[in-house]
Amino acid sequence: MKKANETLELLNRHVSVRQYQDKPVSEEQLTAIIEAGQMASTSSNVQAYTVIAVTEPGLKKELAHLAGNQVYIEQCPVFLVWCADLYRLRGAAAPHLQDEETYEDSTENLLVATIDVALAAQNAAIAAESLGLGIVYIGGIRNRIAEVAERIGLPELVYPVFGMCLGYPAAETGQRPRLPLAAVLHRNGYQADTLQEQVQIYDEVSSAYLRERTGGKNAAPWSALMSKRLAEPVRLHMKDFLQSKGFLKR
Amino acid sequence: MKKANETLELLNRHVSVRQYQDKPVSEEQLTAIIEAGQMASTSSNVQAYTVIAVTEPGLKKELAHLAGNQVYIEQCPVFLVWCADLYRLRGAAAPHLQDEETYEDSTENLLVATIDVALAAQNAAIAAESLGLGIVYIGGIRNRIAEVAERIGLPELVYPVFGMCLGYPAAETGQRPRLPLAAVLHRNGYQADTLQEQVQIYDEVSSAYLRERTGGKNAAPWSALMSKRLAEPVRLHMKDFLQSKGFLKR
Repeated sequence: MKKANETLELLNRHVSVRQYQDKPVSEEQLTAIIEAGQMASTSSNVQAYTVIAVTEPGLKKELAHLAGNQVYIEQCPVFLVWCADLYRLRGAAAPHLQDEETYEDSTENLLVATIDVALAAQNAAIAAESLGLGIVYIGGIRNRIAEVAERIGLPELVYPVFGMCLGYPAAETGQRPRLPLAAVLHRNGYQADTLQEQVQIYDEVSSAYLRERTGGKNAAPWSALMSKRLAEPVRLHMKDFLQSKGFLKR
Repeated sequence: MKKANETLELLNRHVSVRQYQDKPVSEEQLTAIIEAGQMASTSSNVQAYTVIAVTEPGLKKELAHLAGNQVYIEQCPVFLVWCADLYRLRGAAAPHLQDEETYEDSTENLLVATIDVALAAQNAAIAAESLGLGIVYIGGIRNRIAEVAERIGLPELVYPVFGMCLGYPAAETGQRPRLPLAAVLHRNGYQADTLQEQVQIYDEVSSAYLRERTGGKNAAPWSALMSKRLAEPVRLHMKDFLQSKGFLKR
């Protein structure tokens, strides 16, 4: 299909940016980006997220370190920490409540807040790209999440879901191919039977891409990379951390 | 700030659509929408989601019923069920693994998959809107989630995160105002001190909006609505359900 409009073209051009120009993001741009984020759908209008714009060089440096020494966090002019936030909701609700039991600690409400923040962040990412800026999501802020939360003063019922670097791209980045559409889009029910075939197709595509990008040094197929990813004990502290913040208790 | 481009304008125009024309969504449109979804960022390229396009009238009707009799699910030409999917990942990884322990059951990996699906879905939502279509997210498919999962044949390590109606809008909808920017955007740390003031401002705005939309019948402030929402024991089955599917075991 001919990409029929500016927005579709923009969505299809997305790449993660890991090198930024030394050029500020204006207050006007930041406002436009976060306001566009707010226009995303939100479950029952809970708007269960807060985004912390970090511009203080010392704080950016610390967060870069806590996220596993990702230098672009330090380099980008604005580092956004996207937080799931049920603290504001509970604070807003409190004056209307007597002794009723409340459910901010449920798995459902953790998911609601996590989805809310992701929808808003993705809108913001697209808004940023429409303004000529680049972004990259940073899951690494969950590496040492308790320290991150403490450093930016998060109260209970708030957790940092991911970070996002924001700034003018300094370099062209290749666009990583995605899984075949048929792997991801099923019809009227889950189609497990074609899974193996789709993975094989993608293994070839992703291996060829990696080979080209690394000048022949690496050509690991996707499935091999994923096996390493799954066998890695990543962030096993998350459950305890979330429960310590008042989430996920039932 | 003057909304500087087509994409920003589109993001700022978003409304949820709950009435659809009797007009199909073409295969070309659906492809463009899901492919745009796939271009969203994904954690370490796991692409941990599958979307099930439901067009079979009988199945749509059943899902509409299971989601709490939301008629627009039946009415829209395509109902998308967005699923977090670690089953494909584990299947892809399996041939590369011997006896290594794997961590698909961690809280971290549940969050990764949930965030992945939300980012892809929001891209798809924007793509759909850029093509003149409308959408609404349906959290209601989590009401009777086990029945939904069974009906669409979801294997273990897959769960339906939310639904999304897709089609041509049949009616204009008002745009609900959002929290003040200052409530949501904080600087270099969490600002709990202005929370109460921001909620008061929003209570007035949202109450006025509701009064106008209901012809004076309802003018409940946001904080009052949120107190009802928090005191509601919504979907307390989620933890058990997710664990039964192999998620969230540690």
